[in-house]
Amino acid sequence: MEYDLAYLASFLDGKLNGDSGHKINSISSLDQAQPDQISYCSEKKYSKQLETTRAGAVVISQEYVSSFNGNSIVVDNPHLSFVKIARLLHPEKSFEAAIHPNAIVSSKAVVSPSAWIGPNVVIEDGANIGDKAHIGAGCYIGQNAKVGGGSKLYSGVSIQHDSIVGSQCVLYVGVVIGSDGFGFARDGEVWEKIPQVGRAVVGDDVEIGANTTIDRGAIHDTVIHSGVKIDNLVHIAHNVEIGENTIIAACTGIAGSAKLGKRCSIGGSARIFGHIEIADDVVIAANSLVGRSIKEPGVYSSAIRAEKLDKWQKNIARFGELDSIARRLRMIEKEMKKK
Amino acid sequence: MEYDLAYLASFLDGKLNGDSGHKINSISSLDQAQPDQISYCSEKKYSKQLETTRAGAVVISQEYVSSFNGNSIVVDNPHLSFVKIARLLHPEKSFEAAIHPNAIVSSKAVVSPSAWIGPNVVIEDGANIGDKAHIGAGCYIGQNAKVGGGSKLYSGVSIQHDSIVGSQCVLYVGVVIGSDGFGFARDGEVWEKIPQVGRAVVGDDVEIGANTTIDRGAIHDTVIHSGVKIDNLVHIAHNVEIGENTIIAACTGIAGSAKLGKRCSIGGSARIFGHIEIADDVVIAANSLVGRSIKEPGVYSSAIRAEKLDKWQKNIARFGELDSIARRLRMIEKEMKKK
Amino acid sequence: MEYDLAYLASFLDGKLNGDSGHKINSISSLDQAQPDQISYCSEKKYSKQLETTRAGAVVISQEYVSSFNGNSIVVDNPHLSFVKIARLLHPEKSFEAAIHPNAIVSSKAVVSPSAWIGPNVVIEDGANIGDKAHIGAGCYIGQNAKVGGGSKLYSGVSIQHDSIVGSQCVLYVGVVIGSDGFGFARDGEVWEKIPQVGRAVVGDDVEIGANTTIDRGAIHDTVIHSGVKIDNLVHIAHNVEIGENTIIAACTGIAGSAKLGKRCSIGGSARIFGHIEIADDVVIAANSLVGRSIKEPGVYSSAIRAEKLDKWQKNIARFGELDSIARRLRMIEKEMKKK
Repeated sequence: MEYDLAYLASFLDGKLNGDSGHKINSISSLDQAQPDQISYCSEKKYSKQLETTRAGAVVISQEYVSSFNGNSIVVDNPHLSFVKIARLLHPEKSFEAAIHPNAIVSSKAVVSPSAWIGPNVVIEDGANIGDKAHIGAGCYIGQNAKVGGGSKLYSGVSIQHDSIVGSQCVLYVGVVIGSDGFGFARDGEVWEKIPQVGRAVVGDDVEIGANTTIDRGAIHDTVIHSGVKIDNLVHIAHNVEIGENTIIAACTGIAGSAKLGKRCSIGGSARIFGHIEIADDVVIAANSLVGRSIKEPGVYSSAIRAEKLDKWQKNIARFGELDSIARRLRMIEKEMKKK
Repeated sequence: MEYDLAYLASFLDGKLNGDSGHKINSISSLDQAQPDQISYCSEKKYSKQLETTRAGAVVISQEYVSSFNGNSIVVDNPHLSFVKIARLLHPEKSFEAAIHPNAIVSSKAVVSPSAWIGPNVVIEDGANIGDKAHIGAGCYIGQNAKVGGGSKLYSGVSIQHDSIVGSQCVLYVGVVIGSDGFGFARDGEVWEKIPQVGRAVVGDDVEIGANTTIDRGAIHDTVIHSGVKIDNLVHIAHNVEIGENTIIAACTGIAGSAKLGKRCSIGGSARIFGHIEIADDVVIAANSLVGRSIKEPGVYSSAIRAEKLDKWQKNIARFGELDSIARRLRMIEKEMKKK
Repeated sequence: MEYDLAYLASFLDGKLNGDSGHKINSISSLDQAQPDQISYCSEKKYSKQLETTRAGAVVISQEYVSSFNGNSIVVDNPHLSFVKIARLLHPEKSFEAAIHPNAIVSSKAVVSPSAWIGPNVVIEDGANIGDKAHIGAGCYIGQNAKVGGGSKLYSGVSIQHDSIVGSQCVLYVGVVIGSDGFGFARDGEVWEKIPQVGRAVVGDDVEIGANTTIDRGAIHDTVIHSGVKIDNLVHIAHNVEIGENTIIAACTGIAGSAKLGKRCSIGGSARIFGHIEIADDVVIAANSLVGRSIKEPGVYSSAIRAEKLDKWQKNIARFGELDSIARRLRMIEKEMKKK
């Protein structure tokens, strides 16, 4: 892929300063870009690099344009515009429809003639693979499971029976959709398994990171709404519901029947208790534990940063005295009031 | 599957109120049940739904029976009875014994004639697959590994060489049993690998969630006793021992040589240090860190709930002063005593 | 494998006390060793077992040799010497070079004639597999990806396109190298994916645990330097750099563009923020959160140990008063000064 700056400026609806015929073939950062690459600048801390960058062009906001002598495209949101150019210059690889001879596809499954089914894929009875879907090597598509049009499953993804993945989704290696929820009832000393008869239902434009697991519902469904983005090694338990366009960073665990709103942002390694609700537009800091429902938008945290061990130990040792400290302080206050 | 209420009441050893010939074919919740479905009520917060439910029958405890006009089966433990009915109505799918033509089974392995071996399965020399075991697509069974009778491995499970899975176990997608433990000895700047010559040994009736990893022992074995239930994305290190009927929720990590008792309940995202012992009947709250041995049954926690960011920051900023606060408070107390 | 003690003592460059012709075939612990096994003692807490062990020989430091009557080999560092013997007695299984007939290898890939390619492996165009590399069942090697000489991939490992694994590495089951980083730019309510055009580059002698994921870089590469050891279920985000011989325990998450030094030791379930730097020789305690750059070697922690629930709750309830406590204490101090 190669485009000249006239094309890229028009593509971004931006104002071009410089050589409209200059050719660009890929993206890079300001400090490492070559003359055939484009970069961007939207933050003060990177603006110094404008003096020395060798980039063939820079996507830039109005405020930095005067500090730069090279080719530039001026736009309102340089980061977002840069992302659009990145997608133009580095498009998803296209593929030709095919079913690999080593795939094992049930005669009772429906596979769109425009889909690609990789080697060692197993597709069970009643499954349905949409138009231009891409099912990577070794994926497993269970009975009556569905994968929507344009969705891409990398290798080794598993969609269990009856579960549904919408259109234009991306599921990375090792994702498990619709595994049984973790439900048991105690019978004396032993745990009796509760059949998990709901499904896992994933909307459109959802991205799910490597080795993430999304369990099926116990009675009703686990639901991931459209536009949700989930990172690697995330656990989503049975009957969780995640609202549209919520984003969840890596290593997070969400317990059963939790309900998250729309446009939430959940930091990495967060923990969310079961059976609680989180409102729309809530931000949870990385490594925080959500232990009760959150009804108002805003940022919430219980993250504690590491300190040097001796300092940490001195303070954490006092943590066990905190209640005593509070009581004794109260007593002193009373004492002093008397005087 | 369809049963009438007379059969279900007798199956549960419960008392039927209502139409003994009414037919039930599946389970549901009180608020969404249809007339051909059965639900249950054992908690006050759901008892209001008895007024409006359309369920064909409800499994109920004596205390709520008077508030309900529909068909009911009265039992001592409605939740457990409901689970039994759920398993009756939604049984595990049966399968016919077979070795899929795309499976690769060593001539030196022993596979029960009643087992099912899926496509792309690899079974190495000396492995042993028990009666009615179900080995899902793409599983890997290493040299001399054993899978007991009636156990079900979903797709993509790996049992490394010499490791053992007992009878009636369920291992979900991506489970790894018997991978090398994380053992190194420092030699100057570099780490020398310590061969991991123990096994991972899993008892009977154990359930292990998707993408969970259980390492083999360094010298002796890692042991998961019978009846243990483990959720998704759990890490169990080398030489850990987990007592019977202990249950471990998702994202938990258990470090090397930790020994957990029987009937423990480990919350999600808990962390357990290595080389410690936890007594029987211990409950660890979600997101808690067990840093030393626990000798008495009971509930233990170090979980801290998220607060609004400004409130959290105000308080956490003082955490580094805690030792100073404790010392100054002590001084004031001394000072006041003098007076 | 079987060696006599004369050979083993000479192999370790140690001093033999006892029967030089005694034969040893495997390793064990002091308390369980048999006469044909060797054990070691380097810590006081195990030295009592010297009185009762049945081990055929013990690798021992000078200080304990007088308390032991059996065969011993005296060395400076018994643990490291024991590891060397363990590797001698329990060597990696050798294999004969082959491409399994069920492997699917592109004619445009280069596979060394001394490599072993297992069943159901998929190797794409332009990939390169080095001498004596071992690619386990069901692995996926993407376009132009490289696996260096002597590296061993267990089953179900995935190396995405263009990514590189060096020589003498060990990757356990389910490892994912070079999956897309988690990069999105907000456009109104929706998240636009940022193409991830960097690679994941892994050096030599790196070990990576089961189901661990290492993402490719956004623009430039994610880099794991030589000698790094990573445990199970670890998440390493895009553009992270890990210095030589750093060791990372299980369930840890490292966010984007974090840069770790050499010879660091990262405890299990640690969390490291993005865009920070950690110096060489830093130790992070298990379950700690690194929230800012660390410039000095040393041990850092934010780990909090679980307590009995009633004690924990009493103290944690006061945590929300900490700022108020600090302010009130300051006021009392001022008040008392006045007097």
